[in-house]
Amino acid sequence: MKIAILGTGTVGRTLAGAFSALGHTVVLGTRDPQATFARTGPNAVGAPPFSEWHSRNQHIPLEAFADAAAQAELVVNATDGARSLSALGSARSANLAGKVLMDVSNPLDFSQGMPPVLNPVNTESLAERIQGAFPDARVVKTLNTMNAGLMADPGRLADGDHSVFVSGDDPEAKQTVAGLLEALGHRDIIDLGDITSARGAEMMLPVWLRLWSTLGTADFNFKIVR
Amino acid sequence: MKIAILGTGTVGRTLAGAFSALGHTVVLGTRDPQATFARTGPNAVGAPPFSEWHSRNQHIPLEAFADAAAQAELVVNATDGARSLSALGSARSANLAGKVLMDVSNPLDFSQGMPPVLNPVNTESLAERIQGAFPDARVVKTLNTMNAGLMADPGRLADGDHSVFVSGDDPEAKQTVAGLLEALGHRDIIDLGDITSARGAEMMLPVWLRLWSTLGTADFNFKIVR
Repeated sequence: MKIAILGTGTVGRTLAGAFSALGHTVVLGTRDPQATFARTGPNAVGAPPFSEWHSRNQHIPLEAFADAAAQAELVVNATDGARSLSALGSARSANLAGKVLMDVSNPLDFSQGMPPVLNPVNTESLAERIQGAFPDARVVKTLNTMNAGLMADPGRLADGDHSVFVSGDDPEAKQTVAGLLEALGHRDIIDLGDITSARGAEMMLPVWLRLWSTLGTADFNFKIVR
Repeated sequence: MKIAILGTGTVGRTLAGAFSALGHTVVLGTRDPQATFARTGPNAVGAPPFSEWHSRNQHIPLEAFADAAAQAELVVNATDGARSLSALGSARSANLAGKVLMDVSNPLDFSQGMPPVLNPVNTESLAERIQGAFPDARVVKTLNTMNAGLMADPGRLADGDHSVFVSGDDPEAKQTVAGLLEALGHRDIIDLGDITSARGAEMMLPVWLRLWSTLGTADFNFKIVR
């Protein structure tokens, strides 16, 4: 499948590498490819500069959001949640229309300090805002409840014996996403329901952040025992 | 230990029975014992009337909130989250001072229809409001992320191989609560941190409610795989 991954942070890079290794044709999208390549220092969360990663992954092209989305059959939103609507706007509605839009972002708001809060929250989710802003895209929320390493390689923890959620209004789109998740090694894919159920998945972030701190590792995940 | 459980719904009844079976001296608290005994129909969530349960559990007395709390060493808040501050006010600050106050409630707000939303949420939690309103109580948030049956008997699901959280400012109070949880059969007790970490535990409710619906059972729980 032709997959565009919007966002060049740890999540975007890790998913790009994983989908490419599975044989998909992957393109990464960013606001300004030249600026992304030009950065030399670590990014806001301490990841090495994109150019360093790309020197080892030259088979994955980097393009502007709209160019990346235009050529893809499926688009992944791996941008910073606070900027996702803007990034998807740059990708343009027409390039998202009819396509599965896999949203793995979290609407974390660091403007009031640490820990971040969620915005939106409770009566709304970022996934719903994205679906509302791009009504012709087929939005599926998933993977936002674990770190990038586990998104792409769940088998590295407890042989993959933990859970991942999908939320969305389009059953076929959820099937497509579930197929990709299975190919990555996800064994327990739980369909939470329509796109409003993404509220629940996004609202797991505060406990996730506390667990990260108290466990001293981000390599953990939720398993729904039943 | 002398334990007062405030709230006579399914959670209060179930915890009362379980702590009593462990040898603790348990008293249930309610706003108006006569009115609680007088009800004949099922309650708001379809549980049989209290009098029916009590006819099989006559060793557990029912008293007014303040009388129940006054004689206890540890108090459990098992009241409806929307009314917890009022119930605890009726129990009186002096009867809570210095005591461990185990808060198992959830601030679910059904006033806008289904699904309920959380109030407070995100930048505040009900546990924090309780700690703020009763500064001399030693509040520990716990057990709010599972159904009553699993709170009291975690071993009935997957031999107890799932997780429970504690949040609170007082390390000794958390130790006391952890001891009670262990006695009930909880095997993986995770200390999330101070009382503000209860935001994370309370914000798991929306996904819990969706899972209840999608799994068709409330007999499930979160396990933190690491």
